[in-house]
Amino acid sequence: MKKTDILTPIGIVMAIGLILYAIISGGKGIKIFIDIPSFLITIGGSFGAVLITYDLATVKKIPSALIMSIKGIDANKLELIEQFKELSKIIRKDGVLAIEQQVSEMEDQPFLKKGLELIIDGVDSKDVQEILEIELNEREKVYGNSAKIFKLWGSYAPAFGMVGTLIGLIQMLSDMGSPDDIASGMSVALITTLYGALFTNMLFNPIGFNIESKGETEIEYLEMVVCGLSSIQNGDSMRAMEEKLVTYLNEKDRKSYENSSSEVA
Amino acid sequence: MKKTDILTPIGIVMAIGLILYAIISGGKGIKIFIDIPSFLITIGGSFGAVLITYDLATVKKIPSALIMSIKGIDANKLELIEQFKELSKIIRKDGVLAIEQQVSEMEDQPFLKKGLELIIDGVDSKDVQEILEIELNEREKVYGNSAKIFKLWGSYAPAFGMVGTLIGLIQMLSDMGSPDDIASGMSVALITTLYGALFTNMLFNPIGFNIESKGETEIEYLEMVVCGLSSIQNGDSMRAMEEKLVTYLNEKDRKSYENSSSEVA
Amino acid sequence: MKKTDILTPIGIVMAIGLILYAIISGGKGIKIFIDIPSFLITIGGSFGAVLITYDLATVKKIPSALIMSIKGIDANKLELIEQFKELSKIIRKDGVLAIEQQVSEMEDQPFLKKGLELIIDGVDSKDVQEILEIELNEREKVYGNSAKIFKLWGSYAPAFGMVGTLIGLIQMLSDMGSPDDIASGMSVALITTLYGALFTNMLFNPIGFNIESKGETEIEYLEMVVCGLSSIQNGDSMRAMEEKLVTYLNEKDRKSYENSSSEVA
Amino acid sequence: MKKTDILTPIGIVMAIGLILYAIISGGKGIKIFIDIPSFLITIGGSFGAVLITYDLATVKKIPSALIMSIKGIDANKLELIEQFKELSKIIRKDGVLAIEQQVSEMEDQPFLKKGLELIIDGVDSKDVQEILEIELNEREKVYGNSAKIFKLWGSYAPAFGMVGTLIGLIQMLSDMGSPDDIASGMSVALITTLYGALFTNMLFNPIGFNIESKGETEIEYLEMVVCGLSSIQNGDSMRAMEEKLVTYLNEKDRKSYENSSSEVA
Amino acid sequence: MKKTDILTPIGIVMAIGLILYAIISGGKGIKIFIDIPSFLITIGGSFGAVLITYDLATVKKIPSALIMSIKGIDANKLELIEQFKELSKIIRKDGVLAIEQQVSEMEDQPFLKKGLELIIDGVDSKDVQEILEIELNEREKVYGNSAKIFKLWGSYAPAFGMVGTLIGLIQMLSDMGSPDDIASGMSVALITTLYGALFTNMLFNPIGFNIESKGETEIEYLEMVVCGLSSIQNGDSMRAMEEKLVTYLNEKDRKSYENSSSEVA
Repeated sequence: MKKTDILTPIGIVMAIGLILYAIISGGKGIKIFIDIPSFLITIGGSFGAVLITYDLATVKKIPSALIMSIKGIDANKLELIEQFKELSKIIRKDGVLAIEQQVSEMEDQPFLKKGLELIIDGVDSKDVQEILEIELNEREKVYGNSAKIFKLWGSYAPAFGMVGTLIGLIQMLSDMGSPDDIASGMSVALITTLYGALFTNMLFNPIGFNIESKGETEIEYLEMVVCGLSSIQNGDSMRAMEEKLVTYLNEKDRKSYENSSSEVA
Repeated sequence: MKKTDILTPIGIVMAIGLILYAIISGGKGIKIFIDIPSFLITIGGSFGAVLITYDLATVKKIPSALIMSIKGIDANKLELIEQFKELSKIIRKDGVLAIEQQVSEMEDQPFLKKGLELIIDGVDSKDVQEILEIELNEREKVYGNSAKIFKLWGSYAPAFGMVGTLIGLIQMLSDMGSPDDIASGMSVALITTLYGALFTNMLFNPIGFNIESKGETEIEYLEMVVCGLSSIQNGDSMRAMEEKLVTYLNEKDRKSYENSSSEVA
Repeated sequence: MKKTDILTPIGIVMAIGLILYAIISGGKGIKIFIDIPSFLITIGGSFGAVLITYDLATVKKIPSALIMSIKGIDANKLELIEQFKELSKIIRKDGVLAIEQQVSEMEDQPFLKKGLELIIDGVDSKDVQEILEIELNEREKVYGNSAKIFKLWGSYAPAFGMVGTLIGLIQMLSDMGSPDDIASGMSVALITTLYGALFTNMLFNPIGFNIESKGETEIEYLEMVVCGLSSIQNGDSMRAMEEKLVTYLNEKDRKSYENSSSEVA
Repeated sequence: MKKTDILTPIGIVMAIGLILYAIISGGKGIKIFIDIPSFLITIGGSFGAVLITYDLATVKKIPSALIMSIKGIDANKLELIEQFKELSKIIRKDGVLAIEQQVSEMEDQPFLKKGLELIIDGVDSKDVQEILEIELNEREKVYGNSAKIFKLWGSYAPAFGMVGTLIGLIQMLSDMGSPDDIASGMSVALITTLYGALFTNMLFNPIGFNIESKGETEIEYLEMVVCGLSSIQNGDSMRAMEEKLVTYLNEKDRKSYENSSSEVA
Repeated sequence: MKKTDILTPIGIVMAIGLILYAIISGGKGIKIFIDIPSFLITIGGSFGAVLITYDLATVKKIPSALIMSIKGIDANKLELIEQFKELSKIIRKDGVLAIEQQVSEMEDQPFLKKGLELIIDGVDSKDVQEILEIELNEREKVYGNSAKIFKLWGSYAPAFGMVGTLIGLIQMLSDMGSPDDIASGMSVALITTLYGALFTNMLFNPIGFNIESKGETEIEYLEMVVCGLSSIQNGDSMRAMEEKLVTYLNEKDRKSYENSSSEVA
């Protein structure tokens, strides 16, 4: 099951569409909601705060973090169990060196590949565990940091929206004209608050939580890989290895796994 | 004691009823509180943000999470102690294979069943513990993730409610008519804020916390199962096993257990 | 030192008294602050949200949690040290069975009693520790869950207060009359917000934190019991046991303990 | 370096001074900001909530917690290293009993004194560690609880400030007179909110965080004492002990320590 | 790759520039936004609260913390791997004393230097680990405390901004003149809120999070140093050491490392 993440663009289109619908159904046109200076102060100002917070290496990662939030994660757990069973069979029959060929072709599973290479090279079981743990922590940090950038941006944006509204209010109140002038000044002043709320709740926060959630999915997959690798290196029986790996499946996957297993048997 | 969760629908009916009572006792009718565009922007928009946050596999789980919050959890701890005592007696008398028949019929206790099957199959005590721990963690994650979806939705909804109100305010202020127009425009603008507050505090947050609380109840039950299984595999005396399991009971259950025990004795 | 918790009612009387004083000193009478529908929507509605959140077993515990917050906790640490010293003396002289009589009379210290009974029954030191740890965790959860109910209620109540105010505002604005009508409508609308703020900060939150704090006091007392029991079972010298237990005393108790000890010596 | 905490009164004087300056520069006199009922409802009411939350033993500690926040902590780490080096020298030369005289005079370092007394009495290394750990945890709790009282008060005060403002608003709106009356009623109503914000941000929160920060300083000092005591009991070489203890110094202290050391050499 | 942190000043210039642009494009001049008493009450008052919170030793660290947030951290991981490989080669060939000369010149890597010195001095592997762990914790605390000062200031500043606005409002409402007077009074009153929001979101919070993020970068680098030192002391093979250290690299660095390695080979 390849997890597709088509939902990110669908969600964005849906949220924007509904906002536009609300604006248009108000009958005052979309023009009063477009204001470049308001955009600059809210989104630009909060991006300035992001720049103050992070160094260049981190800020450079924002585009790749954005891509991360659109791409699905390829964490096919059912396939992984099959792979481990096959590898285990070969090793039992022909020894650990027999999987060398197969391992060299695992381009799309770098973590699994690295672990198997270490095992083939005869690296000590404890060292393999240690290396994979560090790797896992590093992956966790990459996701955590990427998510934090967007969440922090999502906390700065409404604040700069409020700053924009306060600036507008102070200007308006410092020199009042007719009530009509006040109302329209107020209307302009509120646009930055609207921008701050919209960008934060439609983009920054959802993207931040999206990356966080993707990180959890991948980390769980990697933990399953570590579990399988340790099973292989400890020479667990096929039954014990399978039992451990199946535990990582959710209910639905577990059923489809049991069905496919019994078919074979 | 089968925990019924009839309280979820009762609470919803009670909260909705009181809101309706407040609306009707205001004497202005219910019609001014119903506005489809306001509903779409608040609930639809925040659902869009949920879609951006999660991938398809997670969003698909929302209905089953909803059902989870209505169904009670079958965590009868008193019965579990009896089961463990019986199992322990049989094993002492006829060995571990004698419970095979009984285990195969435990359809409604998959976790207990799996643990006993592993013991029957002679899987090592340490491996059994490890497999059950992974399983327990997976269950914990299922509850945690389901609860988080609703809590996140509950944090987006008031934000989109505010966005709707801001859009209404800006439209109203950009082109003012008579004071009466202003007031009624303001009235409409506030409806999205009302929707956001209502759905979050009457549905999203309570359901999120409900699932979280159910998760805690089930995890505690599963920990009790793990404790009992480890007692059986370690060959604890009946007394020690009972003493450990009773500790998981709350005061009320403990008393009723002691009464029933002394009756037997 | 028996900790009295007369402060809970004193605090409630004090807070209510000051609120009444503020209301009466305003010179507009107390009648404008009493509104049954406002009470129903704020407190009833938020109680509905509590019902959605929890199952029957948990909701049934609310009254006993309330009582918990008024009753003091009997955690006399000085007396406990004396008890342990006496028990230790008897065991040294006549063996562990000599305390059986004394233990059977400890009705008001169920946790200490259970631990000693296990020791008398010759249960293994490691098993005693494990059983007491589970018991301690269960007590911690009881306090934690009880506190959480009130804190959650305290988070729903202001939200329903705001819902009530929004409903009032929308009704008022949808059909305006004279400025006087507006003002008095506004006055009524704000009452739900007042109720939400009052009940949360005068009852729900203080009671929630009260239970939390009582839990910490009891857990610390139980940890001291566990420490003393392990000292007895490990055959610590009187000096080592005393030294360990005294560490749990606060400065004041420590001084009064040292005084009473030196008097004896 | 004796840490002086003259900053607490300086900060209070500075904050109050600036507030007074803002009030006086407004040119409307200080009298409109003084209102006894407003003070009673905000500070008295929130103190009532504190009374509901805590029991007598805890509330009695408030004055000593206040003193704690003004007194500096005597955590001279440089001197401590010298003390440990001296003690270590004596013990190496004349055995552990030779330090008895010196230890009996350490009135101002009760924690160090207790640890050394235990070592002199020949208490087992593991037991010494355990006793000191419990003591350290107790100190941590004392600071944590004291800080929490003030932080909780700081969360109740603005809430009662808002309650006061709501009461004032409802009274004012229920029976409106001239616009001037409204404005001055509003002015009075806002004073409770001002009091709540001022007391929380000028007293309750800063004092709470002050105690928390002092706790961290002392705990770190005590951890250093534990480290040194364990070095002595394990018979570490002078070099190893020094190396470990120096690690607890900050950069500035480390430099001044290295300078003084090289002078001696 | 030397991480430059030119982004902090760039971000500040960008945020200030956009605020100024918003102010100037409003056409009312910058003068109405400059008010010394407002600045004093907001920034001075909140600094007073910071003084109450911390003792002298901590407050003295604010300037160095500020510098910390501008300076980049020199955590070149690629170079570190080369260093460790070289050191490992020398030690294998000529023994651990052969690196003494090289170590004495590592002025800019005090942590690595200290670790190597301990190894040269023949300090026990377990003691080296313990000393480095304490050192790492101390560094973590330095960053954590520095970040906390600014975050706390960032929480006090908006509160004092609100206090200033409340003072202005109360003065204005207590004695109303013409509507124009009200508006301009309101305008002045809002400036403190603006200052509070601006300084917090443009300086205090970004600087606080900046220091926090720098701390994480340095701690990770130091963990890599600890890992390499332990590899050397345990006599790991070159392959195992390299494999462990490479795991700390991010994807981009890992590629450039593999390229440079294969070039050599």
